[in-house]
Amino acid sequence: MTGALFGVGVGPGDPELITLKALRCIETADIITYPKLEDTPSFARAIVEEFVTDSQEEFPITIPMLVDPEPAQKAYAAAAKAIAKKLEQGKVVTALCEGDPFFYGSFQFLFSRLAISHRVEIVPGVSSLMSCAASTSMPLSARNDILTILPAPLNNEKLCARLEDTDAAAIIKIGRHFNRVHELIQTLGLEKHARYIERSTLPTERILPLDSVDGNKVPYFSMILIHKRGEAWQ
Amino acid sequence: MTGALFGVGVGPGDPELITLKALRCIETADIITYPKLEDTPSFARAIVEEFVTDSQEEFPITIPMLVDPEPAQKAYAAAAKAIAKKLEQGKVVTALCEGDPFFYGSFQFLFSRLAISHRVEIVPGVSSLMSCAASTSMPLSARNDILTILPAPLNNEKLCARLEDTDAAAIIKIGRHFNRVHELIQTLGLEKHARYIERSTLPTERILPLDSVDGNKVPYFSMILIHKRGEAWQ
Repeated sequence: MTGALFGVGVGPGDPELITLKALRCIETADIITYPKLEDTPSFARAIVEEFVTDSQEEFPITIPMLVDPEPAQKAYAAAAKAIAKKLEQGKVVTALCEGDPFFYGSFQFLFSRLAISHRVEIVPGVSSLMSCAASTSMPLSARNDILTILPAPLNNEKLCARLEDTDAAAIIKIGRHFNRVHELIQTLGLEKHARYIERSTLPTERILPLDSVDGNKVPYFSMILIHKRGEAWQ
Repeated sequence: MTGALFGVGVGPGDPELITLKALRCIETADIITYPKLEDTPSFARAIVEEFVTDSQEEFPITIPMLVDPEPAQKAYAAAAKAIAKKLEQGKVVTALCEGDPFFYGSFQFLFSRLAISHRVEIVPGVSSLMSCAASTSMPLSARNDILTILPAPLNNEKLCARLEDTDAAAIIKIGRHFNRVHELIQTLGLEKHARYIERSTLPTERILPLDSVDGNKVPYFSMILIHKRGEAWQ
């Protein structure tokens, strides 16, 4: 009996953006696992709602939402231990990951604990990086462009320097950092080349110029895309 | 009669990595179009071989391989004109794009010519950026990492500066630039954190440390991934 853990990207939100391989890994799994925050339903689980059957065991991993990363790591360590036991019983476990598992994904916390001792395979998925570009009808990057991915929690000095040195940028993990990042983009004179996207590919998707965004209501699943070339794509 | 053009990402190479939406766009298309280089079969067309039926019209766009970009742009302009005619007849046209259409994709050359006047929709796909990370079993980026995408044709000064200022990098479009880029990575002391991947997700996929690569035989579909954190992921 050889168990296997599949870390499966389920894409940015539209269930039709999962891959055929992700679908197979979900349909053939003995156990479906996914992280969820306390008191919040799992987004990854919601994306694949129509593909999971009642006969499948589910193993939600509840992650405490705290500034201190220690309790979350404890939760992943305990989950890895429980999953290891299932793998040793020959079970196939599919872990659902929003977007792509290895692009800023929390699946790394299971992967780093299990891949040395067990069979773990990554199934890449459509990232919100690509779906946000599709939503804005603006190529992410072309020809010999430099494209930089910048998490919004970085300090202003770093964000400024990297925005100045790139042709295109995606600012991710915006949430409560919106107002600061917006001001910074204005200072750099990049506002006309920037678009804000929230809940890409979901029915509630919104695409806005930055000055139309209410900075106090920016969800976790949002992104700012910037391309200095602007509209001149040919 | 309203025609529509779908720019569809077909993923990095494994046919199972196309999305359900891409499959639907292929199956329901009146016409399947794709770019191909002279004397070379289309890679995008090869990926979806099993999904295209004999009853579907095919429209390959032959792109001249020259240093001068003008003839290629002429080919795209002529193709856009021919596709516009089909759209005006109410046809559904699906354009196959390797990886994702808007991540360094040539679909932009059709998009920029047709999106103003016709219905054009982008269907994002799994990018080789994500599949290469999956192949190497090494997360692309995590937490507040800066991730920089660098086309290898950029000059050494730019490549060096951007590699120094980032946590993680993907160097794309390597081909004949391998030896120069390899030397540069050595000079920066980053070789131990770098992996070379060619033909990601295909049966011929290879993952190598840089000093095992024959710089004269590097295919177009190759990438170098670097993460300064190395193996310490927890």
